[in-house]
Amino acid sequence: MNRSGGRAADQLRVVEITRGIAPQAAGSALIRTGETRVICTASIAAGVPEWRKESGKGWLTAEYDMLPGATPTRRARNRLDGRTREIERLIGRSIRACIDLSRLGSNTIHLDCDVLSADGGTRTASITGVFVALQDAVQTGVQRGLWQADVLTCAVAAVSAGVVRGASLLDLDYAEDVSAEVDANLVMTDRGEWVEVQATAERGTYSDAQLRELTELGRAGIEQLFEHQRQALAAPRG
Amino acid sequence: MNRSGGRAADQLRVVEITRGIAPQAAGSALIRTGETRVICTASIAAGVPEWRKESGKGWLTAEYDMLPGATPTRRARNRLDGRTREIERLIGRSIRACIDLSRLGSNTIHLDCDVLSADGGTRTASITGVFVALQDAVQTGVQRGLWQADVLTCAVAAVSAGVVRGASLLDLDYAEDVSAEVDANLVMTDRGEWVEVQATAERGTYSDAQLRELTELGRAGIEQLFEHQRQALAAPRG
Amino acid sequence: MNRSGGRAADQLRVVEITRGIAPQAAGSALIRTGETRVICTASIAAGVPEWRKESGKGWLTAEYDMLPGATPTRRARNRLDGRTREIERLIGRSIRACIDLSRLGSNTIHLDCDVLSADGGTRTASITGVFVALQDAVQTGVQRGLWQADVLTCAVAAVSAGVVRGASLLDLDYAEDVSAEVDANLVMTDRGEWVEVQATAERGTYSDAQLRELTELGRAGIEQLFEHQRQALAAPRG
Amino acid sequence: MNRSGGRAADQLRVVEITRGIAPQAAGSALIRTGETRVICTASIAAGVPEWRKESGKGWLTAEYDMLPGATPTRRARNRLDGRTREIERLIGRSIRACIDLSRLGSNTIHLDCDVLSADGGTRTASITGVFVALQDAVQTGVQRGLWQADVLTCAVAAVSAGVVRGASLLDLDYAEDVSAEVDANLVMTDRGEWVEVQATAERGTYSDAQLRELTELGRAGIEQLFEHQRQALAAPRG
Amino acid sequence: MNRSGGRAADQLRVVEITRGIAPQAAGSALIRTGETRVICTASIAAGVPEWRKESGKGWLTAEYDMLPGATPTRRARNRLDGRTREIERLIGRSIRACIDLSRLGSNTIHLDCDVLSADGGTRTASITGVFVALQDAVQTGVQRGLWQADVLTCAVAAVSAGVVRGASLLDLDYAEDVSAEVDANLVMTDRGEWVEVQATAERGTYSDAQLRELTELGRAGIEQLFEHQRQALAAPRG
Amino acid sequence: MNRSGGRAADQLRVVEITRGIAPQAAGSALIRTGETRVICTASIAAGVPEWRKESGKGWLTAEYDMLPGATPTRRARNRLDGRTREIERLIGRSIRACIDLSRLGSNTIHLDCDVLSADGGTRTASITGVFVALQDAVQTGVQRGLWQADVLTCAVAAVSAGVVRGASLLDLDYAEDVSAEVDANLVMTDRGEWVEVQATAERGTYSDAQLRELTELGRAGIEQLFEHQRQALAAPRG
Repeated sequence: MNRSGGRAADQLRVVEITRGIAPQAAGSALIRTGETRVICTASIAAGVPEWRKESGKGWLTAEYDMLPGATPTRRARNRLDGRTREIERLIGRSIRACIDLSRLGSNTIHLDCDVLSADGGTRTASITGVFVALQDAVQTGVQRGLWQADVLTCAVAAVSAGVVRGASLLDLDYAEDVSAEVDANLVMTDRGEWVEVQATAERGTYSDAQLRELTELGRAGIEQLFEHQRQALAAPRG
Repeated sequence: MNRSGGRAADQLRVVEITRGIAPQAAGSALIRTGETRVICTASIAAGVPEWRKESGKGWLTAEYDMLPGATPTRRARNRLDGRTREIERLIGRSIRACIDLSRLGSNTIHLDCDVLSADGGTRTASITGVFVALQDAVQTGVQRGLWQADVLTCAVAAVSAGVVRGASLLDLDYAEDVSAEVDANLVMTDRGEWVEVQATAERGTYSDAQLRELTELGRAGIEQLFEHQRQALAAPRG
Repeated sequence: MNRSGGRAADQLRVVEITRGIAPQAAGSALIRTGETRVICTASIAAGVPEWRKESGKGWLTAEYDMLPGATPTRRARNRLDGRTREIERLIGRSIRACIDLSRLGSNTIHLDCDVLSADGGTRTASITGVFVALQDAVQTGVQRGLWQADVLTCAVAAVSAGVVRGASLLDLDYAEDVSAEVDANLVMTDRGEWVEVQATAERGTYSDAQLRELTELGRAGIEQLFEHQRQALAAPRG
Repeated sequence: MNRSGGRAADQLRVVEITRGIAPQAAGSALIRTGETRVICTASIAAGVPEWRKESGKGWLTAEYDMLPGATPTRRARNRLDGRTREIERLIGRSIRACIDLSRLGSNTIHLDCDVLSADGGTRTASITGVFVALQDAVQTGVQRGLWQADVLTCAVAAVSAGVVRGASLLDLDYAEDVSAEVDANLVMTDRGEWVEVQATAERGTYSDAQLRELTELGRAGIEQLFEHQRQALAAPRG
Repeated sequence: MNRSGGRAADQLRVVEITRGIAPQAAGSALIRTGETRVICTASIAAGVPEWRKESGKGWLTAEYDMLPGATPTRRARNRLDGRTREIERLIGRSIRACIDLSRLGSNTIHLDCDVLSADGGTRTASITGVFVALQDAVQTGVQRGLWQADVLTCAVAAVSAGVVRGASLLDLDYAEDVSAEVDANLVMTDRGEWVEVQATAERGTYSDAQLRELTELGRAGIEQLFEHQRQALAAPRG
Repeated sequence: MNRSGGRAADQLRVVEITRGIAPQAAGSALIRTGETRVICTASIAAGVPEWRKESGKGWLTAEYDMLPGATPTRRARNRLDGRTREIERLIGRSIRACIDLSRLGSNTIHLDCDVLSADGGTRTASITGVFVALQDAVQTGVQRGLWQADVLTCAVAAVSAGVVRGASLLDLDYAEDVSAEVDANLVMTDRGEWVEVQATAERGTYSDAQLRELTELGRAGIEQLFEHQRQALAAPRG
């Protein structure tokens, strides 16, 4: 199986994470993985949603969208289709695994992931990138006296994997994704435990053995993504 | 761990599938699993969606909703929230794994799953039940000369599993579901291959070993559900 | 005029009312009249709508919809067209005639009528069936200490009548309804007084004498429907 | 029972119909009945709705709305509530009773009734007034060679009646309407046949005898309204 | 350049303003300029919008729409397109220039401009006409003890101007507007100061000199419109 | 008057335009003016809108939105309010002044301006920046053989000006904008002719002399912006 750019089956695309792209947001980052680019911001709002008020806890929620120019054929705005809602829910669930909402006070953190260029893996890139924006927003909240730094309890990152023409591959680009038999989205903490495993047969079906192959590829890839997050956060906020 | 009704950890709730509940639809079934009840119908329409026209293939799509009286507190109609859309997409993908769309002609099969009583596991009960409605609709199409019986290539059924207070359990009811640490939805064909594995950490995270436990519980449960489908289809259409 | 099944001009279709079909609702019933089937539920909610708050009275409201598989050609969901709203308003007004809202306390009863199979007369079947669901919900409210059993002040039932090829007929099925010159919906209390008379010329017009014929057919039919309601309520709740 | 302005129980309010108020529409009229004022226009469009295309017949449809300043407390725009849709459907059905759609060619007539001042009876005033606008639009169509003058087969007018504190009254104003026990809307052709009888118990119920009283009041009132229509159409178009 | 009706380049169309057209509104007027007719109403509501509550000031807002029969080809209702919103914002801003919101108390004045006949210049006619309706509503508020007459601090009127085939013209009708190279909307107080100047090149561009010509034409026209407003307000309220 | 950063009254903020930020779009640019940042893309689509089909000409349209994290307080998505629509219409009109639609063939160019950071002047920055994206998209179209390079007939740029505490200032930032008495948006071609002049009194009114001051400030500022556009286009596409 020849991959674009000569990548190995278990090799990530080039990753680059830049902090501070949206200077008025509490935290922000631009993540690039190959030709995929996602603008990630984290905003802090006083108060929590109505249904959450009696809990005494804070809240964190995520939204995801594509900019119209992110794809070769322009995509109309505001297409709140099922896929978009599914991705938003996945991002929110995944990031909530690394934050202790009971220590946030009566505050809500809004995460926004807006795809600037889509070449496969936008939902997993969103999770990996928005965690960096969140880190900065958490720091902003600490500076404003809203909470302590220990509200973050772990790091979270995500990657895709899939079966293409019988081969299990890490980090599919768009061309690989559309021809994949199985498509998996994998989310893990930096303690090596799963937050979410979703493996979908787009055509045909898959065996227990293939499921294991995909999760092992994902585990190795996510470990590298944690390193990219750490480097981004070591650089100045920009 | 004491389960309601004294169920064992690997035991399904009582299942009952009744064909023909909606006599004007091409196929229909009512599935009960414990206190969960879902009305499933399958309708045949000439033509395919616009984006599908050039493919020369047919299409199958699914919708899911809850009747307002399905829950102890009434649920407002038309809440097309993210959860609903996610479930619809799961049902559609799952059932498409067992039908050869290229043999359907220029026809669309619409599946509708409307929950009459919700006590956990409504999305997996929908998949298991609507496959029976689909069988009857396929038969209706054969009688109308639209296609051959071999458009169906396998059977599909689904079940939930989860981790509750550390224990891996099959087929969660609502009370178990709300307190689960991990919640999995598992869809399999009658050839024993996966169509979809979704395992979500609702609180905390889970290990590779726990993921394997859940998939093994699900495999055993789904095998029993195939037997219920066969019995329903052996009974008269009602 | 030959009617389907050899019915006489003043004869109802076969009626069957089953209580308890949706076990989580405060009250529920399935009504069948010929091939028409309607799922009726009644739910209790604390509080009243905003505009009602200063009245010191409770409220009762109704919603009506068709399940997509209720018709031979699938009907799209959420078609909140004028017909649907008109029917909802008719059901609500009709049932409010039999309940003393000033004794409900600050509570709202929601009635939901969802058509499972449509063969004419779905709005009048909804009124007749949902009254049974309401009876059970009123009983549920008594058990919860929300109100007394005397909030119900009478029984209400409804039937259609029409002029088909010059003949006045009771309880039109779908085939009769589409060819009717005049279509009437008639709602009455068990004291023999009208709640609503609606007689519409679908094609042409009608005379005072024809209006009287239709109301007399309806009166006789509704008296039989009260007997079916009483039998359903005499059976165990299921 | 003392009525505002000393009206007798069977007396209409002062009626005035002015043609040509909207000079760019194919037909238009302003109807005043007491303090109720409705702007009525009729427009001609080539083509018919999609569902109508195969019929070979034309179509006539109606819309109804209130201007925000029509009531002492301003009413928000675009409140497409059930009442509005019900009224639109009533106006459309009523006017279609007097036009032979099979002679309209492939054209649609749109009627629009916009209430400028609301003091009870706006839906029946709309029917009476828009018939005058329709007459002018039919004439416009004749001049354009679209159809013959005989597409109109009769005249239609409408009035309300009701039971207020036990007394049957013709043509309720707003103050009477809100305190009425029974509210009827009555639509008749100039041949003395009914197009629609709708009698609704707003509180309590009503007897066969009361239903007859209301229809007799309405018949006498509508005969006077036909005279007002004829006078308006005898005046120059303005 | 020959204008319709032989108008000079700097000549307004015939203007007529009638008060009291909607008797239930706090203030109302019908303005006609040539074939353009706009129904203007002003309504008073207790309270202010949420975002305004802490200001201690009142609020004034405007809505604009066209009746479906206002144009030779019927225009569908509720087309809340960008043009409509732009006009609403212009009317609101313009009228707010002549009212001291800090003296209105916690009240909102709603202005509504509904076009009955559209022949160019509807947005500027709306501003000129609704100021008359506002004057009457302010008087109504004085009578109700809500505020003092001095809440109005000046008069406001508006007119269009444009460049058509190279010539600068005042008060374009529809035929002139569609062929104009430049289209300007000009709003001024009776102290001779501008509230808004909007000059748009519909095709091509324009020079500083042309911009000055258009504003001078507008200034002269608006001075005449103030005289029409004064005459309307001198007449009885009707 | 002391301006932030010590700017003179007639001085622009620092401007930076980067091409190629969205590599999958036909053209793209990021414009920064002070703390304001806008992502601009231009996409090419085959075909034109329905209403445009018979013209034989192409079409160019613009959309504008803010990313949720663009402001210190997060702004909800999809707020299609009047301000947004007004800005979209302004951008579209302005850019259409520099393109010969009759030479585009049956193609549509979609411009998208998404604000990444909002600090005043986002609509004028959008116009200036999106012209650069358009240049690249035009070049892309030339390479695809869709049209010739001469479809662009001039350059367009825009700037704001305003009166703040009596002083006329160029290029307001957010703090200046919210306290301005008059706010002007000025759009000009590189031939020195106006495309649009909009001067709005936000509080009070303004004189002819002030209008002239603002247009003169704008003219000088826009001439500098054309230089920034030329520099960006001289750099490699990135």
